[in-house]
Amino acid sequence: MQIPSKYLENATEQIASLPGIGKKTALRLALNLLKRSEIEISDFTKAILELKSNLKNCTSCGNISDEPICSICENPARDHSIVCVVEDIRDVMAIESTSTFKGIYHVLGGLISPMDGIGPADLNIERLVQKAASNDLIEVIFALSPTMEGDTTNFYLFKKLQSFEILITTLSRGISVGSELQYADEVTLGRSMQHRHPFQLANK
Amino acid sequence: MQIPSKYLENATEQIASLPGIGKKTALRLALNLLKRSEIEISDFTKAILELKSNLKNCTSCGNISDEPICSICENPARDHSIVCVVEDIRDVMAIESTSTFKGIYHVLGGLISPMDGIGPADLNIERLVQKAASNDLIEVIFALSPTMEGDTTNFYLFKKLQSFEILITTLSRGISVGSELQYADEVTLGRSMQHRHPFQLANK
Repeated sequence: MQIPSKYLENATEQIASLPGIGKKTALRLALNLLKRSEIEISDFTKAILELKSNLKNCTSCGNISDEPICSICENPARDHSIVCVVEDIRDVMAIESTSTFKGIYHVLGGLISPMDGIGPADLNIERLVQKAASNDLIEVIFALSPTMEGDTTNFYLFKKLQSFEILITTLSRGISVGSELQYADEVTLGRSMQHRHPFQLANK
Repeated sequence: MQIPSKYLENATEQIASLPGIGKKTALRLALNLLKRSEIEISDFTKAILELKSNLKNCTSCGNISDEPICSICENPARDHSIVCVVEDIRDVMAIESTSTFKGIYHVLGGLISPMDGIGPADLNIERLVQKAASNDLIEVIFALSPTMEGDTTNFYLFKKLQSFEILITTLSRGISVGSELQYADEVTLGRSMQHRHPFQLANK
């Protein structure tokens, strides 16, 4: 489809550079933006520019934050001796929304992936090791995705942390709550069986 | 899901204001933008701002254009006595991509829809009537969507144009090319039957 304006084409191309947005959707979004007032457009672009210029990474955990230290690290009510290691800030939000974790986080900013040229030095690992060396930690929880890259990163972190006297745990894998046994894949069901635990009447 | 930054929340809300983009997708897109360089971000927002400030509507047909007169209206090779009336600039692009029409367009900018408070005065209709009155037109093609609003608009335009000596036509409706007869809906199949035409060996 031929776009009859270089400005529209340019905007469409920029919007189509976002992940999961194709050329046709981008054109639809560009035309939607075109219908808005000058003020709405300037609010839209200002929000994106401010996002880039004002958002900081927490100097302690790597989570995004408007302040140098994020609200979780700053909170004295949280247990600073338990650190949950995650790949991404979205994982922090996902775990926070479960309200089951009262410790602090450590955001790696990615996973070790030699295929994509991402090594340990590219990730926020050194600060985690420093934290462990400072003797303030009781437990480190690995909460990375169950992929090849996640397993590689888990292994690397374990090697780095095992010399310290810290309990290293990982999230339990198993069949989802509410799903039917017969539809679970074999690996997941196998893990569920391997890691079976004493039955409790009320799960706390 | 709690977003830990007001800048991120603001950007997410702005992106979620686009049609068809939910809050979770908007967050994903905002985080993708966050990963880009300052220059990439400024290119992105500049493209959107320029779209709003530089894009014009063709003073002749209402199509979008970088110049006061769009490339189609300006083209002397096109037949200026045949005007195809469409709702939206995307319809122009869609018809242009078929390469079957050599006339010019007239973009209404919407359809008459009393439910949404859109009356004839809100649309680019007056200029079409002026064009018709100027005696330069041989044919006006109604290429509006086959909806209630489209039919209402067709009816209104017909009333406005019938006093001039102009051939008024509309796009043929029928079963799509390549689709199977048995799966066509009854109204479409009925129209196909009503508007049957002499069989030709080669469709020109």
